[in-house]
Parts: sequence; structure tokens; C-alpha cells
Amino acid sequence: MIRATRFLLLLWLHVAIVPAVSAAPDPLPSWNDTATKQQIIQFVEQTAESNSPQFVPVPERIAVFDNDGTLWAEQPAYFQLLYAVDQVKAQADKHPEWKTEEPFAAILKGDMEGVKKSGMAGVMKLVMATHANMTTDEFSQRVDQWMKTAKHPVTNKLFTDMVYQPMLELLNYLRSQGYKTYIVSGGGVEFMRTWAPEVYGIPPEQIIGSTIKIEYKLVEGKPVLTRLPEMDFIDDKEGKPVNIQKIIGRRPVIAAGNSDGDLAMLQWTKAGAGPRMAVLVHHTDAEREWAYDKESAVGRLEKALPVAAKEQWIVIDMKQDWKRVFPESTSD
Amino acid sequence: MIRATRFLLLLWLHVAIVPAVSAAPDPLPSWNDTATKQQIIQFVEQTAESNSPQFVPVPERIAVFDNDGTLWAEQPAYFQLLYAVDQVKAQADKHPEWKTEEPFAAILKGDMEGVKKSGMAGVMKLVMATHANMTTDEFSQRVDQWMKTAKHPVTNKLFTDMVYQPMLELLNYLRSQGYKTYIVSGGGVEFMRTWAPEVYGIPPEQIIGSTIKIEYKLVEGKPVLTRLPEMDFIDDKEGKPVNIQKIIGRRPVIAAGNSDGDLAMLQWTKAGAGPRMAVLVHHTDAEREWAYDKESAVGRLEKALPVAAKEQWIVIDMKQDWKRVFPESTSD
Repeated sequence: MIRATRFLLLLWLHVAIVPAVSAAPDPLPSWNDTATKQQIIQFVEQTAESNSPQFVPVPERIAVFDNDGTLWAEQPAYFQLLYAVDQVKAQADKHPEWKTEEPFAAILKGDMEGVKKSGMAGVMKLVMATHANMTTDEFSQRVDQWMKTAKHPVTNKLFTDMVYQPMLELLNYLRSQGYKTYIVSGGGVEFMRTWAPEVYGIPPEQIIGSTIKIEYKLVEGKPVLTRLPEMDFIDDKEGKPVNIQKIIGRRPVIAAGNSDGDLAMLQWTKAGAGPRMAVLVHHTDAEREWAYDKESAVGRLEKALPVAAKEQWIVIDMKQDWKRVFPESTSD
Repeated sequence: MIRATRFLLLLWLHVAIVPAVSAAPDPLPSWNDTATKQQIIQFVEQTAESNSPQFVPVPERIAVFDNDGTLWAEQPAYFQLLYAVDQVKAQADKHPEWKTEEPFAAILKGDMEGVKKSGMAGVMKLVMATHANMTTDEFSQRVDQWMKTAKHPVTNKLFTDMVYQPMLELLNYLRSQGYKTYIVSGGGVEFMRTWAPEVYGIPPEQIIGSTIKIEYKLVEGKPVLTRLPEMDFIDDKEGKPVNIQKIIGRRPVIAAGNSDGDLAMLQWTKAGAGPRMAVLVHHTDAEREWAYDKESAVGRLEKALPVAAKEQWIVIDMKQDWKRVFPESTSD
């Protein structure tokens, strides 16, 4: 009887004391202790705590993140566009016609202003020439190769080192609190799936992005999926809530973005019943990253900022709220 | 010291003995003890056992299931089509023009042969008239209402009672072994999401199906998603591996279907490296369910059966392999 009591006592000590002595570590160590950090932690705790009136059951804890400018940098141009430019240079030998055809000719002359001048039609030509007419496996291998070797034109870092350390911590923190983390990005879904699972800890099936059409066929009896030079769906602006509905089928509890392309996703999220959190990353740090908003061609943040102010969304001021921007293993 | 030893002993007893006395129950009790059941269990055990040469890491354990004819019945017509027919009858008062317009006129006269004669174009008109021009919420509410009240024309059961008990057990068994279960069906994704999560234990984000276009807009400042009368994607035949790639982004380890519409998905699955299992449900039980294959208009199984024989896929003979067809709470 005494032994049984001791056993229960030991058990009680284990349950009651161990958590008390090992205080929970700060889940967001790269964030300054500002109101932004406090609001985020408070929201997550309240939705994850079963006794809270704001409690959200685990299966409904869906958090969606834009990628470019929200989880990693997007200046001086979307990194996927830099991939396309590098591919054009690498493939130029096989395409003598590119010497006189825009936007390829401009790329080969190193004339990035000329590429910009070719506009949306030029970008589409560039994307189709570098992202299509190959199998899904071939495409993934090319992206993987580039990601492991190509360097950012300004920082000279690997692109996967230009992810935001505070956002990596937020993703981990959310998952530790039962949230399922998703990417919902204007970027290409198969481009992201080659590196994002390892870098963000987000599995391929939780990565949503723009798609080009793919075709299934048997080649000598072997099934092959080929990427076709035709847009399927652009996962930007109104396309984001549409894809969330089509693919996830539930309204997120948390949505984070950084540009007007995320406005519809944030509004759709906040319009749901119960607790919802909308987060905007505001690029205010010209020293450690870039400072841009309503004048920027990339990641323009013009319409969403006043909505965020009016609706009291959480706006991350990169300069004020983040202790560091990029992971420690790299130099800021 | 003695007390510590006792504590460890108690702990050891708990760990070592409790599993030994409670032998693992049969994971598939509604399956006869045939080669089919043994092959399925053997495959699952080998892929889940970390010491096995066939081991598959948990994140890659993706299992995809067709729905109509694979997880629930599909005779005398796809249940979603019966939903559309019932909706036409219920909405006829508001649509006097339907009295003279096919396929609506045939439906209102109870002439199902006339509906069939209207062909694919007629079915599309029927689907658009009953599945579009409403918000996604309104549509879900209507389907939910129907599912709770409508009865199958032959068995007089609720449609959600016409799911296959052996397949419910297989879904549960796979999940207990670390598999993530998905539906990949020609049926409408939002139609399935209203009832399938509860019935199959598969969350909305793991349900893939055909889609009509949806539109996001602000109505009096409130974000709304409206279903448009236009097809977006038909998740059947070659569309299945395409959607698996687009939405899941990994090749499944297990795929199960019952008709030629599943052939591409099964071939794509089996063509992957490492262990892969393809399963065909063969409807051979005219007494407890229906018996049909290559002559059937619904769920035609003509091309896939010889491929299954040649490639040694697992073919479930419903009559031989299943102890019971529908759940116990209902009558077979």
C-alpha cells in the first residue's frame, strides 16, 4: 500500500513538477518583444487552449502562408523569374532563334530593362520556354540543381538561405500548437515543391501554387506526366481563396501575406466565424533586407495596407519586429 | 534504491506485458480469410515495418481511393446524379421552362430513359442547373439536407449507409499504419466534402474530385465564393494522375478503384519505384450488391480488368472476399 502511494507520488511529481522546472522556451526567439509578437502568441495560445472561449479544434487549425516576400525574399525580382533567366542562358546554344526573339534576346544581352519592357506576355513566353515541354521529374531535377548552386545577385547567398528566420520559427510554433501549415503562393507549385518541404517543413501536399497544364500519357507503355506550355491556374489575388476552397476545402484560421496579391486570401480568412488572424509582412528594412510597399513592381503593397489598418490586422514591421531576418548560418 | 527498482519494474511490466496479453485484433474483420485479404495485410505490414526491405517512410505513405463503386455503391446511377434529379423535382415550381426542356422534362415525367438519351450534354445541363449559381455554403447545406433524408431507390437506405464496411475497415487499418488516406473521385469535390469526412474519416483537404469554376467577390463588403455553371476539371481517367500530381505532389503507394476511370491512376501508382499496390474492386455480388463490369454504363470495368490480371494487381472479388458488404447498423 505504501509502495502504491509512493508510485502515485512519483507519478504526481513527474506530472506536476517537470513542466514547472523546465519553463517553456521562447517559441519566437528571433522576434523582438513587441506588440506584434505578443498578439501572435496570444492568438495561437487562445485558439489552442481547450478551456479558452477562442478554442479551435485541431482539424480546423489551418494556417496559410504566401511565399514570395512572406516566407522568403522577392527582390530584386521573384526568384522563380531569376531561375527562368538562368535557364534561358543555359539553354541558349540549343535555341539560336532566341538571339532575335524577345524577351530572350534581352536576357542574352543582360538587358533586364528590356525583359521588363516585354511585359506580362514576355514573362509568359519566358516561363513557358523554361518550365514546360518536359516531364514533371525532369523539371524538379533542374530546379533542384539550380537551388543547390545558384546565388542571389545582391547577397550572393543560396536562395534557400534567403528565407526569413522569424517566419521559420512561426511555422514551427504553429505546428507545435496543432496547426497544419500551408503555402498558398503565386509561384509555381512544382517549383516550390522541390525545396520548400526541406526548408519550411511543409510537405508537398500542403503546397498550393500556380500551375501549368500537365498531360498524362503512356510512352512505350510507361506512364509519363508532361508539363505543357499553357497556363492552368494563377494562384494570386482572387485565385487564392478560390484555390483554398478547391484544394483545402476549409477556411483558414490564420493567413499571412505581404502584398496586394494576398488581400483576397486575408479577407476571406478574416470573414469566417470565430477567431481568425490576418498577418501582413511589411518590408521596412532597407538595411537588412529591402524597404518597399506601394511603389514596388514586385510585391506591391498598396490596397492591403489601409485595409489592414482599418480591420486591425497584424502588420509585421520587419525592421522593428524582427531581431534578425535570415537564418544564423548565413550572413545578414 | 529498492523503491526505484520497483518503479522501473512496474514500468517494464506495463511496457512489456500489456501488449502481449492484448493480442492485436483482426484489422479487417469483415473480410473473408482469402488470398486477397492476406496480400493486402502483408503489403501494409511490409511497408510499415521499419526493418523491412519494403519499408516506406510515413510521409510517403499516401493511399488514394476512388469513391463511386470503390467506397460506396454506384447503382442504379451515381448517387450524385440522383441528387441532381431530386433537386430538379424540388425546384420545378420555380422553373416552368423545364416542362418542355430536356433533360428536365424527362425527369419531371419520371422518364429516366429519356434522361439517359440526353447524353453527356444533358447530364452537364442537369449538373449545372443543380450545382451552380449559389454560394459554396448554400450548396453544402442543400447536399447535407439531402444526405440526411433521401433514400436509395432500391434498398431504401440512406446513401451514407451504402458505403462498404470492408473498405471502411481498410481505410482505418491504413491510417493506423501511418497511411494518409485520400479520395480521388470523378464525383464533385464539394458534394463529397459535406458527408465523406464523417463517414470515411477523411478530412476535406484529402478529398479530391471534379470541380466547377468558383468565383470570389465582395458582396456588400463581404467575401463570397459563388459556384459558376462552367466545368473546371473532370477528375476521371487521365485527370486522376494529373490531379494527384497537382494537388498531392507525390505518387501514391496504394491506389484503389473499380472502373476504367481508375486505370490511369492505378498505372501511375504502380509505375513508381519501390513497393506499390494497385487494388480493383470487382462487383461480383448480385445478391448483396450488384454484379457488373464490362457491359455496365455505370462504373464500366473493361480495359482495367485484363491489365490487372497481367500486372498481378489485387482484384477484390466482392462475393468471395467480403463477409459483409454494408455496415452492420443497416440491412444488407
